[in-house]
Amino acid sequence: MIRVGIIGYGYWGPNVVRNFIGHGETQVAAICDLEHNALQRARRAHPGIHTTSDCNEILRSPDIDAVVIVTPVSTHYELAKVALENGKHIFIEKPFTASINQAEELIELADKKNLRIMVDHTFLFTGSVRKIKQLIEENVLGDLYYFDSIRINLGLFQKDVNVVWDLAPHDLSIMDHLINKKPVAIMASGTAHFHSKLEDVAYITLYFSDNLIAHINVNWLSPVKIRTTLIGGDKKMLVWNDLAPDEKIRIYDRGVETFGQEASYDMRVSYRSGDMWAPKVEQNEALKVEVDYFIDCIINGKTPINDGQAGLRIVRMLQSTIKSLKRGGEVVYL
Amino acid sequence: MIRVGIIGYGYWGPNVVRNFIGHGETQVAAICDLEHNALQRARRAHPGIHTTSDCNEILRSPDIDAVVIVTPVSTHYELAKVALENGKHIFIEKPFTASINQAEELIELADKKNLRIMVDHTFLFTGSVRKIKQLIEENVLGDLYYFDSIRINLGLFQKDVNVVWDLAPHDLSIMDHLINKKPVAIMASGTAHFHSKLEDVAYITLYFSDNLIAHINVNWLSPVKIRTTLIGGDKKMLVWNDLAPDEKIRIYDRGVETFGQEASYDMRVSYRSGDMWAPKVEQNEALKVEVDYFIDCIINGKTPINDGQAGLRIVRMLQSTIKSLKRGGEVVYL
Amino acid sequence: MIRVGIIGYGYWGPNVVRNFIGHGETQVAAICDLEHNALQRARRAHPGIHTTSDCNEILRSPDIDAVVIVTPVSTHYELAKVALENGKHIFIEKPFTASINQAEELIELADKKNLRIMVDHTFLFTGSVRKIKQLIEENVLGDLYYFDSIRINLGLFQKDVNVVWDLAPHDLSIMDHLINKKPVAIMASGTAHFHSKLEDVAYITLYFSDNLIAHINVNWLSPVKIRTTLIGGDKKMLVWNDLAPDEKIRIYDRGVETFGQEASYDMRVSYRSGDMWAPKVEQNEALKVEVDYFIDCIINGKTPINDGQAGLRIVRMLQSTIKSLKRGGEVVYL
Amino acid sequence: MIRVGIIGYGYWGPNVVRNFIGHGETQVAAICDLEHNALQRARRAHPGIHTTSDCNEILRSPDIDAVVIVTPVSTHYELAKVALENGKHIFIEKPFTASINQAEELIELADKKNLRIMVDHTFLFTGSVRKIKQLIEENVLGDLYYFDSIRINLGLFQKDVNVVWDLAPHDLSIMDHLINKKPVAIMASGTAHFHSKLEDVAYITLYFSDNLIAHINVNWLSPVKIRTTLIGGDKKMLVWNDLAPDEKIRIYDRGVETFGQEASYDMRVSYRSGDMWAPKVEQNEALKVEVDYFIDCIINGKTPINDGQAGLRIVRMLQSTIKSLKRGGEVVYL
Repeated sequence: MIRVGIIGYGYWGPNVVRNFIGHGETQVAAICDLEHNALQRARRAHPGIHTTSDCNEILRSPDIDAVVIVTPVSTHYELAKVALENGKHIFIEKPFTASINQAEELIELADKKNLRIMVDHTFLFTGSVRKIKQLIEENVLGDLYYFDSIRINLGLFQKDVNVVWDLAPHDLSIMDHLINKKPVAIMASGTAHFHSKLEDVAYITLYFSDNLIAHINVNWLSPVKIRTTLIGGDKKMLVWNDLAPDEKIRIYDRGVETFGQEASYDMRVSYRSGDMWAPKVEQNEALKVEVDYFIDCIINGKTPINDGQAGLRIVRMLQSTIKSLKRGGEVVYL
Repeated sequence: MIRVGIIGYGYWGPNVVRNFIGHGETQVAAICDLEHNALQRARRAHPGIHTTSDCNEILRSPDIDAVVIVTPVSTHYELAKVALENGKHIFIEKPFTASINQAEELIELADKKNLRIMVDHTFLFTGSVRKIKQLIEENVLGDLYYFDSIRINLGLFQKDVNVVWDLAPHDLSIMDHLINKKPVAIMASGTAHFHSKLEDVAYITLYFSDNLIAHINVNWLSPVKIRTTLIGGDKKMLVWNDLAPDEKIRIYDRGVETFGQEASYDMRVSYRSGDMWAPKVEQNEALKVEVDYFIDCIINGKTPINDGQAGLRIVRMLQSTIKSLKRGGEVVYL
Repeated sequence: MIRVGIIGYGYWGPNVVRNFIGHGETQVAAICDLEHNALQRARRAHPGIHTTSDCNEILRSPDIDAVVIVTPVSTHYELAKVALENGKHIFIEKPFTASINQAEELIELADKKNLRIMVDHTFLFTGSVRKIKQLIEENVLGDLYYFDSIRINLGLFQKDVNVVWDLAPHDLSIMDHLINKKPVAIMASGTAHFHSKLEDVAYITLYFSDNLIAHINVNWLSPVKIRTTLIGGDKKMLVWNDLAPDEKIRIYDRGVETFGQEASYDMRVSYRSGDMWAPKVEQNEALKVEVDYFIDCIINGKTPINDGQAGLRIVRMLQSTIKSLKRGGEVVYL
Repeated sequence: MIRVGIIGYGYWGPNVVRNFIGHGETQVAAICDLEHNALQRARRAHPGIHTTSDCNEILRSPDIDAVVIVTPVSTHYELAKVALENGKHIFIEKPFTASINQAEELIELADKKNLRIMVDHTFLFTGSVRKIKQLIEENVLGDLYYFDSIRINLGLFQKDVNVVWDLAPHDLSIMDHLINKKPVAIMASGTAHFHSKLEDVAYITLYFSDNLIAHINVNWLSPVKIRTTLIGGDKKMLVWNDLAPDEKIRIYDRGVETFGQEASYDMRVSYRSGDMWAPKVEQNEALKVEVDYFIDCIINGKTPINDGQAGLRIVRMLQSTIKSLKRGGEVVYL
């Protein structure tokens, strides 16, 4: 039985608690939050679980095996560090940390202590992303041309992070997981309309080797909600509409073929336009799949796909994106 | 009666010819194309009209008042120059010219000779763009936050221009017409997958004063066709889906309000989410409206909204976009 | 404080329990179900509430003011009768009863005892139906031409009722509420593919006075889920797509005008095609609104819009529909 | 070379003329219309073709092999009869005739003279219907459960026929072609809102053997245009959205399986919900394919799939539908 302590019972915390409670091999020992109201909500929903506003009761408790950190990113490093020092595995909200150095230090500490770090890149555990990953691994799409993602809606404005830190970790972690390559350069543009330092509209381009390009469009000021990703490959192309009630993933047998010398004026292009196919996608709750996997990694000593290194890769991209934004769109090499 | 000669009877030419023939105050005197097949098609469709493969028969004819140039951009300057020197008004395909210098020279020449130049930015004459222009002029949208346009589909690859020169003139000319401001900086990213020098995927950001930002996503390698523009304003926000069979323009009474000091941590944000409204949009053929307007400008000596200056503004943006692309995404100031 | 006992904790029961618990002026005194598993689920979710498999503990308890009956329709009459005889108000699942006689008897009994009956026509309390009701009452749509509803999806097959008893009560109760007229005749067609007596596809036409016609298409064998209602009026027309994530109701300024003598060959028709408008619709949980209303009706002695008479009207239509089906589509006059 | 005379140059006539002109083995000898304006339009569009307002110039001309009749249904019988008597093949607008007797007489006459009759059920020649026909013939859908079609929009009101004669021939001819069975009974409901005798909203149910049911919803008073057909089979189910710009046909691997004794209470049902697949559909103009086929049938003496018998089957269904409507929805056995 893995004993779990959960720190943070705000917007996402209750979902995390519910899934750890639902797992047969874990026991939720305590819930911590600084806000009185949050603790009251926790007690009402889960009468039997100990609550506290002192996170040390969890971080330093000898009776707890794993700490779940569902707090703002600015607090991640301190909490995770104490947890790891006290021999606890950690499940931590994305983005992993506020800086590269923090991430590197936590990874090193976990390695030394032989502890697991899992960064909550929940989307990796959706049926959609798992299906796309499978399609890419089975080479159904072929060599990739581009990854183009749109994640826009109205709000919710955050008071301490911009739209990039808020929304882009989703797309970056999905991209990182699917593409299996590291970007070589990043450039970003964007604007802040309400707060001089916090962009609410941003566009990010990531360059990879072999002419692969990725683009992410994030916006807190859109009248409509869009969550759509296009992935173009030389064999097939794919549209993932995460808001579709059904057939979220559509695979198109469409493409371009060229003949003759590429660089000459005689280049000939032909188009292929065949069937469309929407595979059945698993409907399980992603967070449940992820929590099951976390416990499995602890019990069996596995390294999660969304480990500290994965978290670090995303933080590195976020930091380069911010650097590019601050320098007015300058290209940042990684 | 305005006598018109048309040069170029390829993909778009037949539409232009049909609309000039349909106009009550014009007479199509001659059609020119270098391709034998094109001329044959022209003769079959319009038995009474003179055809020729020698453009000088049109450019230098004393019986022709206006020359319509529907040829590749690389030929625009030469054809337009001779036409203007011979005292003819010109209606010319977009993009106006292949370079800023060419555009400036043609504008100067037309001014000297008191002739009209109309650049065929057809979209400005659609019911949709005219309705959006009216909404902006009547301040329905309020101050603009962003202009975000997606124009993607499969092909058609061009052998001498990249996706930016092929597709972006539409978005840039629409943006230029609606926004009524000049961009101060441009940055672009993109990649070529089939031809080492011709990008088939590109993303363009344009910065304006007052935190207005524009973004254009053009792609020849998309499995699905998308033609969607979002325009965010502080009063209303708008989505224009040009492929919708009906209700192409949707106006949302949605937005963000802030309270308190902008730069402080106490910034409070609230959201407004009200009705959506799809105004009726005129269904006239845009090219017909544009041809009527061209003849009106000639007869009444009016300066078209899509005159040489408008064409030049678009060429300038295209050239800066290409420059940014060539320099790996560097910001180009205008 | 209204003390409530709930009978039936299957698919819908937990939602009902949750909403009664959430109401400030009610106390859920007991939950009853015949199934051991259901009671176990109830106890786990609501540790403090008494559970029982004997419905008489609720029906005859002196400590209970209102009984909520969320059981199959075949049990409604018996349970409701005992509840009313014991002086309890009732909130009862739709359809109200299995026959007209049963409904009439319960209504009479409630009247005699001055008790409230509320039939759970949940849809009447959605933001969408409330908005449509308002539009009709304010004469925005004008005189109604037709009400055309489609409610199709794959399954869930019921073992004792056909698709009409399962799905049509939704459409009939919405129609009854909005139209404010009683149908004069009903005809229905349909077929059973899996069970010789239980139709899985059915079409119902209802005739009203003044040429108003209603049609309901219900189907358990559709590969796609559709929940769409069209309402045509002489001033405006409306499409309600209940599955749309946003803008569920769209009102079209479209219609037909006629000139000249109706019966002559000179009848002239013209079409009006104006704006479309999607009003903001309240997003509250319908069942919550309904439970609040039920308590309000009890406390303040109000007659609910969805009282026993409303339930009876729906049962009457269902019974006539079944009669028409059994007679191979014969028209049944009401 | 087949010499063709065309009678009727109204809304659809110009499309027919264009396709016969475009065919390599036909020659359009003459166009006839009673309206002066129509003939003027014909002369302007096709300067070389003889025009006349006297249909006998076509019907009795020794130089004409085939007569194309694109006139209102009330004139079909007289025109077709004279054409056949004069030894001409006929291509005739749908619905074939205004009565069963007329259709039978024309079929008999054509048989006697060994002439072809082709009724213009254009939809049979669309890529969509041809693909669906193929899927049914290859038993991809399995045994059919239902055919459910919606064809609604605003107008256009006809002055002499109701919405059933105007719109339902499309659905009935598609259904007749795909299902390959004759209906055993028809029942219809509907209402007229503007003209006492001409229904503008109608619903038709057709019963077939083996529990197959068809339903057609036609409406001239809908604010939105819908052209959607669902076909349910025991292996696969299909949705055809004729207005979709792409992927018009979607095939769902969804269905219901039953276990145990059908008639017992122990019937168990399970659901299958698998992939969706949108096959590529030919994009050729249907009328072109049909005209090619007509000429092929004449030259090679083939019996068209849309021959007089097919036309008669549709007229029979239309007449039974009208009879049911006139009798207030009574079931009519065929």
